[in-house]
Amino acid sequence: MLICSSLDEVKRRESALRFIANLLKGKERSSLYDLSGLAGGFPVKESDLPLLETYSGPAIFSTHLQEEGKKHLGGDKVAAFNRTSAAILATILALVKPGEEVLHYLPELPSHPAIPRSVKLQGATYRETDNLQDFKLTPKTSLVVITGSTMDHRVLPLEDFHRIINISQEQQVPVLVDDASGARIRTVIYQQPRALDMGADLVVTSTDKLMNGPRAGLMAGKTPLINIITEKAQQFGLEAQPPVIAGIVRALEDFTPQNLLNSLERRDHVYTLLLEVMGGVEKTPTGFMISAATLQKEITPEGEERSPRELATLMAMVLLKEHHLVTIPAVGMPGVSTTIRLDLSAADARRLDDSQIINAIRESLGRVKEI
Amino acid sequence: MLICSSLDEVKRRESALRFIANLLKGKERSSLYDLSGLAGGFPVKESDLPLLETYSGPAIFSTHLQEEGKKHLGGDKVAAFNRTSAAILATILALVKPGEEVLHYLPELPSHPAIPRSVKLQGATYRETDNLQDFKLTPKTSLVVITGSTMDHRVLPLEDFHRIINISQEQQVPVLVDDASGARIRTVIYQQPRALDMGADLVVTSTDKLMNGPRAGLMAGKTPLINIITEKAQQFGLEAQPPVIAGIVRALEDFTPQNLLNSLERRDHVYTLLLEVMGGVEKTPTGFMISAATLQKEITPEGEERSPRELATLMAMVLLKEHHLVTIPAVGMPGVSTTIRLDLSAADARRLDDSQIINAIRESLGRVKEI
Repeated sequence: MLICSSLDEVKRRESALRFIANLLKGKERSSLYDLSGLAGGFPVKESDLPLLETYSGPAIFSTHLQEEGKKHLGGDKVAAFNRTSAAILATILALVKPGEEVLHYLPELPSHPAIPRSVKLQGATYRETDNLQDFKLTPKTSLVVITGSTMDHRVLPLEDFHRIINISQEQQVPVLVDDASGARIRTVIYQQPRALDMGADLVVTSTDKLMNGPRAGLMAGKTPLINIITEKAQQFGLEAQPPVIAGIVRALEDFTPQNLLNSLERRDHVYTLLLEVMGGVEKTPTGFMISAATLQKEITPEGEERSPRELATLMAMVLLKEHHLVTIPAVGMPGVSTTIRLDLSAADARRLDDSQIINAIRESLGRVKEI
Repeated sequence: MLICSSLDEVKRRESALRFIANLLKGKERSSLYDLSGLAGGFPVKESDLPLLETYSGPAIFSTHLQEEGKKHLGGDKVAAFNRTSAAILATILALVKPGEEVLHYLPELPSHPAIPRSVKLQGATYRETDNLQDFKLTPKTSLVVITGSTMDHRVLPLEDFHRIINISQEQQVPVLVDDASGARIRTVIYQQPRALDMGADLVVTSTDKLMNGPRAGLMAGKTPLINIITEKAQQFGLEAQPPVIAGIVRALEDFTPQNLLNSLERRDHVYTLLLEVMGGVEKTPTGFMISAATLQKEITPEGEERSPRELATLMAMVLLKEHHLVTIPAVGMPGVSTTIRLDLSAADARRLDDSQIINAIRESLGRVKEI
């Protein structure tokens, strides 16, 4: 199999999807292990489905959402959005007027593009900094955003958190904490307080990051703010829909901080063992990855007969077809990343033991070398 | 039970939701009849759930979405959005620059607020008209929107449709048809062609209107336009999430034009019979309604001991508890409309025969008179 065009890539993806669809026929979900880290859980129960088919079902799940959401994030009131980016857009539209300013503090530049993009759309100005010296509000600042932890799980020190919230409170400017993964990383792993417990006015988190929920944004905070943000969201179609709300509720009910701690400990352990199988394997915040360049070095040290993309695709397809492990180079769209990532915080990782993971890598590596 | 405060309303709603939750325990969905018209279907199958729990499931449903969506709307490519309003926002952000103009033609003024609101957010200008004489593009017009049918199911005449599309095409301005309910009303009931088959560039429909799908927006049209709109949608978190896409796919598969025709015929028939039970009942586009004022005239012609809201609430609660019919005055939020609407295009209506509906109204009316 030579991957020389986008058409081959289309066929590769179709072949992978067909294999998975066949495997899942007859509900044999347990035969598949999705370690892509991008699955997004949808743990609604079969018994939830008939309820979702009525006007009242969503009303009942929305009530549960308030309870479970406040348990997770604190605050007075909760709202769910189609995505965290949608929650940020709704917040900026509700709290920032054209010509005003949003000031963004984060552990490391640059920002996720959703924040500057929404500010620009509203006709406001945007500044970002990762340096406390530069964190200065102006009379035009009407919203402060703090990123609690970056995509690489870099976390804002507690002291900086308090300082930024204090400065903003003194000037009566509301603070939104973008705690996409931070609402769990910061609290569970770094034992920091929840954003609202530190005095932030609003916090938003992604329910698919380090928890087994759908891709969506969950916001909590002060009731009057949540109310006006919700109104804006409904005007532009940004709020989470009932099936997604049901998924969020069930994911919040299932969330167990200890599982997250276990997956990080486990990552360190598996990583050490994997180094013996393959030198170039690298740690990620919640698992590990093998780049196509590493694969190439490992497999074809003498020549360059196969492209890195071809090798990564082969490896991912062997992992899928022989070990039922789903990774992105097998199922992603044409042109997708060629890095094989295995996420140990994925729900399916708990159904695999360490030796299964290591053997799958070792045997797949051997098979690709044969081919 | 006296409804004199919003607190009573909260209790009324909680009591209704509790009753429904108990009724549905053990999956007895068939014992409940949701005629609110606002349920929003979520007809995913139990066997879809394990698939939705993987990265690949959504990929598979997205492929089906292309097939089923194109069957329903025509066009080259399909995209799903969190709501029709979100689809309109994404389209305006993608196709209209600040300072340009959106011209909107509709069967009857005024527009749904989503369109002028999105145009304003983008810093463009907006004009709307329901008069062909006034439909004149300017050099700044970069998008024409046509509303195919209004919320009251008023439909644009075919001749006007063609004329507006021709004028816009001559000036190479793309046309988006907002066919929220029109994609079914216009084609199934008025036998007009699909919007894209008349030469429109884009069409968007609401998958919960006159079909048993989730609240969401389904768009179809020319590939390059769909691609740039999708990109904007993903930037701001406007695209439909995987569980909703699965719901749309199943609803499209289930959609049967004949059911819609039957429900309208049935509405006319049931309406005639209902007039004998209660004089003031009124037709709606897909069912009928009883206003609180009508109830008051019917029940307390001599005095005014009970408020219209109280009577409507009582009637809705009797319909729910004794006949298992869900209507909005029973389950809606505090302050919700006091009009009892029964939608015969709702999926559950097919499980009731005419006499059950008429008896439920007659007996509930009697019970409310007793109380």
